[in-house]
This record gives sequence, structure tokens and C-alpha cells, in this order.
Amino acid sequence: MVYLDYAASTPVSEEALHVFQQLSKDCYGNASSLHDAGGRANDILTYSRQSLATILEGEPDGIYFTSGGTESNILAIQSIMNGLPAHKQHVITTSVEHPSVHHALDALHRLGVKVTIIEPNQNGIITEDILKKALLPETGLVSIQHANSETGIIQPLAQLAPLLKERQILFHTDAVQTFGKIRVSIKELGVDAMSISSHKVYAPKGAGAVYMAAHVPWRPLYTGAVQENGLRPGTVNVPCIGAFVAASEQMMLKLDEQHQLDEQLRDYFLQQLKKRQLPVRALQDNNKRRMLPHIIGCFFEGFEGQYVMLACNRYGICISTGSACASGYHHPSPAVKALHVSDRDALQFIRISFGRLSSKDDIDQLLHTFENLQKEKKGA
Amino acid sequence: MVYLDYAASTPVSEEALHVFQQLSKDCYGNASSLHDAGGRANDILTYSRQSLATILEGEPDGIYFTSGGTESNILAIQSIMNGLPAHKQHVITTSVEHPSVHHALDALHRLGVKVTIIEPNQNGIITEDILKKALLPETGLVSIQHANSETGIIQPLAQLAPLLKERQILFHTDAVQTFGKIRVSIKELGVDAMSISSHKVYAPKGAGAVYMAAHVPWRPLYTGAVQENGLRPGTVNVPCIGAFVAASEQMMLKLDEQHQLDEQLRDYFLQQLKKRQLPVRALQDNNKRRMLPHIIGCFFEGFEGQYVMLACNRYGICISTGSACASGYHHPSPAVKALHVSDRDALQFIRISFGRLSSKDDIDQLLHTFENLQKEKKGA
Repeated sequence: MVYLDYAASTPVSEEALHVFQQLSKDCYGNASSLHDAGGRANDILTYSRQSLATILEGEPDGIYFTSGGTESNILAIQSIMNGLPAHKQHVITTSVEHPSVHHALDALHRLGVKVTIIEPNQNGIITEDILKKALLPETGLVSIQHANSETGIIQPLAQLAPLLKERQILFHTDAVQTFGKIRVSIKELGVDAMSISSHKVYAPKGAGAVYMAAHVPWRPLYTGAVQENGLRPGTVNVPCIGAFVAASEQMMLKLDEQHQLDEQLRDYFLQQLKKRQLPVRALQDNNKRRMLPHIIGCFFEGFEGQYVMLACNRYGICISTGSACASGYHHPSPAVKALHVSDRDALQFIRISFGRLSSKDDIDQLLHTFENLQKEKKGA
Repeated sequence: MVYLDYAASTPVSEEALHVFQQLSKDCYGNASSLHDAGGRANDILTYSRQSLATILEGEPDGIYFTSGGTESNILAIQSIMNGLPAHKQHVITTSVEHPSVHHALDALHRLGVKVTIIEPNQNGIITEDILKKALLPETGLVSIQHANSETGIIQPLAQLAPLLKERQILFHTDAVQTFGKIRVSIKELGVDAMSISSHKVYAPKGAGAVYMAAHVPWRPLYTGAVQENGLRPGTVNVPCIGAFVAASEQMMLKLDEQHQLDEQLRDYFLQQLKKRQLPVRALQDNNKRRMLPHIIGCFFEGFEGQYVMLACNRYGICISTGSACASGYHHPSPAVKALHVSDRDALQFIRISFGRLSSKDDIDQLLHTFENLQKEKKGA
């Protein structure tokens, strides 16, 4: 199998699996228990918080562990809005966020919170102007993804942050797709809150984290919870969190090296598309935007994305038509539509995403399959 | 270390860990992805749903996987109340439930749902009379735990169910402590919904399940989620679910054998308490109630539970003062208070809970430590 869907989920690294296994054996106590079995689990949690805070350039007290990226987005956004005063109950987000952000905002909207959804420009970017126009005196929170899971487009958060800081508006970002892939620093980005997830960084599924700076006045959704400083009730998944943090540390060690490898593979793919005269237009062809190098969104002229994905699958190649969270639902993706493409073009969208185990050979197999698809069509 | 806190969390079995490891390697795809990597993960989910439904004597379509017991309780109760019509917005629960049940009800209460909390009788039992008195024409849901995590007292759910069925009131039970320990059958208990958790049955932390029968008119908290039929958004933790189900299957194979071993250890412990003339009164001394054999709640005369727990810990023995979820908070537990004991007695409560790896030797070490504590006191 050629796996080119790393943005949907990554395989677990040997090292992360080893840590998971060791902690499952040595630290199975409930981290809330006050005896040594609980204490050992709690020590791992303390270490994990410290390590993740160092990686994110934040404070250990700001790290709250969750069960994954979706829960992180939901808890961060709802808890922050829950903590903001009545005159700050307006929240702004974008049309291209992960569904979990919209889940949280739908729930808040039903509770009377005012929600504004802004559209990026035709390059997929939220500019200062776009954001500024949406700001209201009662705006309490803005949530903008760091990069999009389908297009790989990176938002200029550091440029947007000062606009919000000077108005004392809190800034949350969904960094699930960028964490471990490019530099993600709380300080540099200027955000107050962030969501990340374990299974995008070669750790097991089942863990995530919310970062919330000390000045964020969040209030929990469920009162009286004792775990994670009250943010999330339930036994803390220490083995998975330990594996998550071990995997994150590894990502950081290899960050530059992997980034270069990703760029090489991307460039090879783009060159070969042209060389083989394939009717595939990649978003990277338009270089007016910064993108993650390991996510390549493209349009396969004359083929529906769904068809290409399933055809590739017949050839043993896993690619995606966009966010796996919405797969099975055959409608143009908002992130792709936001690039001002027609519905017809948007339905031709496919996403190739690669990672640590990807090779030129994988790309060659994909290109070969694209060529076959074209031949099949011409022959038909 | 002598671990006698299995009710807080169990060690992971070699088999469950092996399954987790295999699935992490072979089925890392996102179960929502439509390619084969996703399909493989989805196949595991389908098998897991089927197997768990067989164990619980329910329908596979009624199984919804979650991240654990706490989330299961919260999602089950909130989603059911969310789906019930306006004239059915009254919910009844007991004072001795797990904190997660109360989290859910607090949230519902703030949304205008009427909540009644009933008290068990002095034997810790919710009788038909007690329940009947709380029923209102607008009662939509009753949630009663199958057994208490601190006292091990089992509620007579099968006797209560007909009262609710004839009034078309839905019945949910938190079976986190009983699942895999005693027979837990949806059919026999007569419940419509149930919560269970992975890390109480020698599986890794990180998975749980909600059962909801086909006739339960639940509505999700977050609209538009595609996973788990909309109940819970977020990438499904297939490796952990697979390990959970493998561990559950194992529990069922060894159910009677383990139950007998638990009873033997319990009886030995109770006999030895008397033989060694220890001032420890176990709830099992009063045999008017059915209890889980592996959970022994006792009162150590003259010692605060917190002190005994920490003293045991110095001797390398892990026991508990009650629910780990509330540990660190030094107040008498509601489940213990419900047994009509004084605050002073309730603070003397300790919980011993054993499992698959427990031995007579563990119990002897505990008893020896109790003797030492007594001697220290007399010597002081």
C-alpha cells in the first residue's frame, strides 16, 4: 500500500509505541490517585506538560491534555467564551476551519453567542483587512486555523495577532496540521490559545492538548471536574499523552530535515506533473501563498476527486478528497470553494499528503496511476 | 508494589497491549477515510461494535464508541435529554453516581431541565418505592449506576426497569464498574442506555462506549458530526477500541473463574480481619445488599481514610479512599454518607479493590500493614 494521506492520520512511530507500551505497564495507575501508582502517572503528566510547553514556547500551566484535536478545539473555544463577560460574547472564525470549530460555534450560537464567519481572500488568506472589518466592540475571541488540512495554506497569524492584542481580543488557533511540521510558537504567533493533536505527529490516536495562557479567563463546561485543572473530566490518558509528547519531541528534532524532504518530494511531484503533461493543477502552482510542503491540494481536470481517490485506491494508493472528517459526503469543500473556484472545479479536488515514510517511489506510483486514469479515459 | 486499587484503573493485559500495537501498525488510517487504509480501520470498528453488542446482548447499531466512561455518561445523558420532547424534560438520578453523571445533569439543569436526585435507603439501595416517589408525568430519563465504585453495592436495575418501561421513561445505567466483572446484559437489566469504559477491564485508557437502543430518540450535542453516527465528533480511536473489545472478550471468557477468585480473596480478607481482631468494619459484614466481590469498602476505626491510604502507600500498598476522580478532596464521599453513617465514620472509609493479578499474599501484606498501623497508634 502506498499511503499518501498523512494529513488524515499518521502511522505510529516505533518510539511512540514503545513509550506507550512502557507507560501502560509501569504507569497504569489513575493519575488522580494519591498513592505511588497514581503519583508515577502524575509525574509523567508533569513531565509531559513541561516538555510540550517548551516545544510550544508557552508555560507548563497552560497545557491541558484532551482526547484529541476535535475535543481540543471544542473545549478551548467553548470554555473561553464561557469565561468571557456578557459584553464580550462575539466570536469570529473563518469559513475554512475544521468541522470541530464549527461544532463549538454552533453550540455557542444556540446559547446566544454572536458568531461571525469570515471568508479568506482568493488566495485563501485571512488578511488584516478582512479580520479588521469583522471586529466589533463586543468581540471576545477570534479563532483562525494555523494551516488548512485540505489546502495546506498557512495563515499569517503573527500579522493578525497585534490587531487583536491592542483591542484585548483573545486569539485561538487550531494548529493540529502545523504542530510538528513547521515551527509553532505561542510567542511568535502571538496567540493566547491553541489546539494540537497526537495522531498527526506519529503518536497513537487518543490524545491532544489545549494551550491557554494564564491571562485567558476560561470557565469549564462542567463544574467540579478535578482533572486537567477542571477543563476536562475523566481519567487522564497518561500512556497516550506520554507517547504523544515523546513523538512531539522527535518531530522537533527532525523538523528541519523533514521539512526539506517534504519540499523535495513536493517539488519532484510538481515537476513531474508538468513533465508528464498531466492535467493536474496544484495549488502550489500559485505561489502567492505560504503552504505546508507535505500537503498538496490539486485539481484533476475532467475527473471528480471522489473518482480519482477511489481509482487510486484500486491501484493500492491512499489519497484523499479533503478532510477525512467529512469524507463520504460528496459536496465541494468550503476550504476549496474559498479559493474562488467553481463548484465543478472544487469537486475535482484531491489532496496528497506525505510524511516520514514517503518516498520518490510512492510519488512515481501515484503519477503512474494518474497517467493510467488519463489513458483509461481516452480509451473509453 | 502491592496494587489494590483495580476499581480506579487496571493494568493493561499483554493481549490487549498486543492488539493495540498491531492495530497501531496495521490500521492507522482514519476510519472516516474511504480508501483501504480507512476501510481497514473501519472493519475493526464494525467487528468491535458487533462483538461488544454480543457481550452486552444488544444491537451492534446501538454501540457508540467514546474516549472513556466519563465521556460516555456525559454524552449518553445529554444526548438523550436533547432528543426528548419538551414535555419530557425531567431527569432522575441518585446521590451516589459517578461525578460525570452529575456534570451532565448540572449542564442540563443550567439549560432548564428539571433534575431530581434520589437517595438510596440505608443499605445503599434504590428501591422501587424510592424511585416511584420521584417519578413525574414529565420524567423522560432515569440514570442509575449498576454498581457503586466506592462501596461496590449493586443496584437492582432489573426490578426497577418495569416501573419505567410501563411509563415510557428511558433508563440509563453507568455500568463502568460492573462491565466485565459480573454479567451485564442490556436485555436482563431492562435498560435502554448504558455507559462502559476500557481501562477498568485491562484495556488501555482512551476508549469507552455508550449503548443506546434503537428506540432511544437521542440528538447529538454537536450537529453535523459524521463519526459514531453523529454522537461524537473526532477521529475514532480504532487501535484503542480494538484493544478494549479484545480485553472485554477476555473478561467474558474468565468471568465466572475471576468472580470465584474475587470471592475467595474477599472472604479471606473478611475472615482475617476478624481473626486478627482488627478494628476494621467492612460493608460486606452487612449482607443485606448485593455487592461486587472485588470492591471492599471498610471503615478503619480511629483512623482517617486519607491517613490509612497514605500509610499503606509508605508500605508500598496502593488502596483508595474512594473514587480516584475525587481524590485530593478531603470530604466524606456521598456514596458512603448515603449509608447513613456519621461524617466521622464516613471519613474513616477506605476502599480495597482487587483484580486479575491479586493474590492472598497481597491481602496478607495489607493486613500486616493494618496491624502495624494499630501498633504504631498504641505505641504513640
